[in-house]
Amino acid sequence: MPNYVMSVQCADGPGIVHAFSAALLDAQANITDNQQYGDPITSQFCMRTSFSSPIGDIEEVRRHLTPAVERFGARFRLRNEQSHEHVLIMVSQYDHCLLEILYRWHAGELAIEIPVVVSNHETCRPICERYGIPFVHLPVNAENKATQEARLRELVDEHDIDFVVLARYMQILSPALCEALPGRIINIHHSFLPGFKGARPYQQAYERGVKMIGATAHYVTADLDEGPIIDQGVIPVEHSMDAHTLSVMGRDVERQVLARAVQMQADDRLFLIGRRVVVFH
Amino acid sequence: MPNYVMSVQCADGPGIVHAFSAALLDAQANITDNQQYGDPITSQFCMRTSFSSPIGDIEEVRRHLTPAVERFGARFRLRNEQSHEHVLIMVSQYDHCLLEILYRWHAGELAIEIPVVVSNHETCRPICERYGIPFVHLPVNAENKATQEARLRELVDEHDIDFVVLARYMQILSPALCEALPGRIINIHHSFLPGFKGARPYQQAYERGVKMIGATAHYVTADLDEGPIIDQGVIPVEHSMDAHTLSVMGRDVERQVLARAVQMQADDRLFLIGRRVVVFH
Amino acid sequence: MPNYVMSVQCADGPGIVHAFSAALLDAQANITDNQQYGDPITSQFCMRTSFSSPIGDIEEVRRHLTPAVERFGARFRLRNEQSHEHVLIMVSQYDHCLLEILYRWHAGELAIEIPVVVSNHETCRPICERYGIPFVHLPVNAENKATQEARLRELVDEHDIDFVVLARYMQILSPALCEALPGRIINIHHSFLPGFKGARPYQQAYERGVKMIGATAHYVTADLDEGPIIDQGVIPVEHSMDAHTLSVMGRDVERQVLARAVQMQADDRLFLIGRRVVVFH
Amino acid sequence: MPNYVMSVQCADGPGIVHAFSAALLDAQANITDNQQYGDPITSQFCMRTSFSSPIGDIEEVRRHLTPAVERFGARFRLRNEQSHEHVLIMVSQYDHCLLEILYRWHAGELAIEIPVVVSNHETCRPICERYGIPFVHLPVNAENKATQEARLRELVDEHDIDFVVLARYMQILSPALCEALPGRIINIHHSFLPGFKGARPYQQAYERGVKMIGATAHYVTADLDEGPIIDQGVIPVEHSMDAHTLSVMGRDVERQVLARAVQMQADDRLFLIGRRVVVFH
Repeated sequence: MPNYVMSVQCADGPGIVHAFSAALLDAQANITDNQQYGDPITSQFCMRTSFSSPIGDIEEVRRHLTPAVERFGARFRLRNEQSHEHVLIMVSQYDHCLLEILYRWHAGELAIEIPVVVSNHETCRPICERYGIPFVHLPVNAENKATQEARLRELVDEHDIDFVVLARYMQILSPALCEALPGRIINIHHSFLPGFKGARPYQQAYERGVKMIGATAHYVTADLDEGPIIDQGVIPVEHSMDAHTLSVMGRDVERQVLARAVQMQADDRLFLIGRRVVVFH
Repeated sequence: MPNYVMSVQCADGPGIVHAFSAALLDAQANITDNQQYGDPITSQFCMRTSFSSPIGDIEEVRRHLTPAVERFGARFRLRNEQSHEHVLIMVSQYDHCLLEILYRWHAGELAIEIPVVVSNHETCRPICERYGIPFVHLPVNAENKATQEARLRELVDEHDIDFVVLARYMQILSPALCEALPGRIINIHHSFLPGFKGARPYQQAYERGVKMIGATAHYVTADLDEGPIIDQGVIPVEHSMDAHTLSVMGRDVERQVLARAVQMQADDRLFLIGRRVVVFH
Repeated sequence: MPNYVMSVQCADGPGIVHAFSAALLDAQANITDNQQYGDPITSQFCMRTSFSSPIGDIEEVRRHLTPAVERFGARFRLRNEQSHEHVLIMVSQYDHCLLEILYRWHAGELAIEIPVVVSNHETCRPICERYGIPFVHLPVNAENKATQEARLRELVDEHDIDFVVLARYMQILSPALCEALPGRIINIHHSFLPGFKGARPYQQAYERGVKMIGATAHYVTADLDEGPIIDQGVIPVEHSMDAHTLSVMGRDVERQVLARAVQMQADDRLFLIGRRVVVFH
Repeated sequence: MPNYVMSVQCADGPGIVHAFSAALLDAQANITDNQQYGDPITSQFCMRTSFSSPIGDIEEVRRHLTPAVERFGARFRLRNEQSHEHVLIMVSQYDHCLLEILYRWHAGELAIEIPVVVSNHETCRPICERYGIPFVHLPVNAENKATQEARLRELVDEHDIDFVVLARYMQILSPALCEALPGRIINIHHSFLPGFKGARPYQQAYERGVKMIGATAHYVTADLDEGPIIDQGVIPVEHSMDAHTLSVMGRDVERQVLARAVQMQADDRLFLIGRRVVVFH
């Protein structure tokens, strides 16, 4: 029996759960997992439901649910669990985040498809070739930035990309690109935001003498390092560690935090409410 | 408008969510939080739902839900969030867990009532008196154990106790007592179970040279140190720490883990399925 | 045989360890623990040594070490482990950090003396009286701030205070006071610095949607929230927690981090190098 | 100027630090880091010292230190920091620990040499070939075990191996082999020892309903899963995770804990005292 995941986001009010559970019953569904959250500030309602149903045609399942979706004006997603999100990864020269994602994907731990990797450097081409993933080199400078971003958006369309992952991609995306893909670009910042925004966060952390360093996965917005936070991690450090050592240690946190964020996005566990992210673990 | 928390546990099957959400709609309820879990092994279904309703009489709310409860043969609890669980605390001579619970309760962080503290020693009487909580001294030896447990059960009945907390109570309860209060006695064991069962776990941990020590909150069953685990915590330790230092450090973990477990029990977040505990955070 | 702890801080160079170990041998000392650090940036050398010696008179031990101290122009401290630091605690209305320190002190876990607690409110007087610790009420307003700080400095002198602990003391100390006690005032800030400086950090954290909150123990300098960091801790949080819940959860981190910092200061484990703190665990 | 690391282990007593610091002064050394530990139970003394010296010939440096070594009958190691330990890795079919070590080695984060990888399966050959590391297939069964272990010991000799890493190698080594390389074989066990010894620890953890799973790096002895513990790590888990999910999550802990243990062994930070391991971080 196929398993489905549905996501619902709409203005809160009575009857939502009842309407959707009635529609699911109508689709002969058995709910295997369900999480909800009603945000008291924005009055937004979010729900993620896993269910199995004997109906094999996803469009038929969708037809059962459409009246409830329309009644509440909900943002709605429905996915067969066997059908994986398409992810475009962008990387520069640091390869640890890319390798982590590719490793988990290859080991069957991360249920995504990776149709293409894009980079402004050639450095990571051999890694991608080894895994049989097309690698597109889009070097960026002041003159060609608009052209290259246009090319990038073509790739997003061509490969039916669900979301983009910046796996230590060291170029700033244009506001236009950020706004074109809201809640669909995930970045890993190598600090525990909001501490140490901007460049060289490990050097900043060293100079400030912090006792823990961290990494932050967040959605990219036009407002640099201010995007909604998806996940964070930290690791304790000691006085004897210099900025280089901090950066080496920090890579462990970066790749874990980014991998978790990608997994949660791929599993439809993230809901964007204003500047905050609801996470259904 | 009053807030209610309801807990449902029954055999899994289609229509449960729909039936309860219909009943809630009928009770003019707005669901503020809902968590569900269907256990694939035992086919048990658990659900915890918070909701507000304009109906102020809990018995009237209950009447709306009773048909659904009966239809699925569910174990069912309904509580007005303002009405707190009654907790009986048992303690011996170590006072750190007792103090932690009393501090949180007094600070308004832990929504419980504590009608009585029972101890086999007089040591903690002054602490309880300071907080204005009745303290009952029930010293235990081989001869009087049955009598004292009978007195304890009277206290449970007199004070309408919902659950018992063993806050480093160093006596073993009789199997009869354990079985009389299934899922209603919480113990803190001073090790990361199943490692270091039995006596002197910090000494065992020291001798084994572990690099982390921990504590485990679990339901008490007749099978010592084998009860279903509610929560666990750990702390890293170093070679230079002796067994006494481990025990001092471990107390920090014990009191935090036990306080969390008590809070979750008091919030109806724990469901016992066989030997495993479902925790809705 | 008495145990001593000595701290040495001076410009790095060859022969320091040799000179001190020779002096210790001369004092018939057996080194039980020794930690050193040479800072590559400032070329400062720090060393903390525990040793036992049959010489019972600390001044006689000091005489053996003085030539080495003078040769390297070192900042030097020598303490009999049985002789505890004198700590003045300042508090406002939140009592959790004060209670944590008093609890650990009373349980024999924190080897300090607390001759006096100072507060700008009467709130915590009963707690101090319960523990038999003198409580001095020094309310502060714009007019009397200088007078009250003068009174505070008298208390520091009268009670031979080694260091001051701001246990959620909500007044800003004057630059003059900060500079009078360099490396001798420890504050707990209720955020993971440098994120969320200033007022209402939990509200800031909530609005920013962070996934972990933290606390920072640091030395107080005239530069608010910018003092050298001693220790930090974090705890994961979820979207469903509002600013109040974050502040309740954060208190757990605050009291643990502050208690650790006080313990390390009392054990002579902290060395201040510029804006960074060397910590010998 | 070259940097050296020396390790000293001997019976504790007065004068050790003085003798070695005198010898180092004699070798014109500047100590950059020094850690010591005197074990109160076994009266063993351990010291790890990093120092720079203008003397480029390690044998000349050793000559300065030999009298102190002989005087205290110490186990002594001296290494130029540029000269890396030779590590033989053994693996079966799970590749995550192998990949982690090879990644860190290749990224320059792990200062070791890996002359050869040995496996009882062909699975990991392509990974090793990709990194240019010789791969030796030594399939093991009841008949050929002694022969294959003899071949393994030849490889240890041929490649001048300093220590062996069992990176999820699923065969039990013979007692004779364990005893031939004491403190020189590191294993990763996929549980938080001493919990869940033996086979299928994630299944055991699932059935026991633990709330955290872990991994343990330890020295291999003839006594299975009882060897001295080097490092441990844990990760929280939830009721909804089945044994397979636990094993996937556990792999993250396994590879991090093993990588840390290998790094500490390669940096001469581990000292074996009876059944306990001293770790100088």
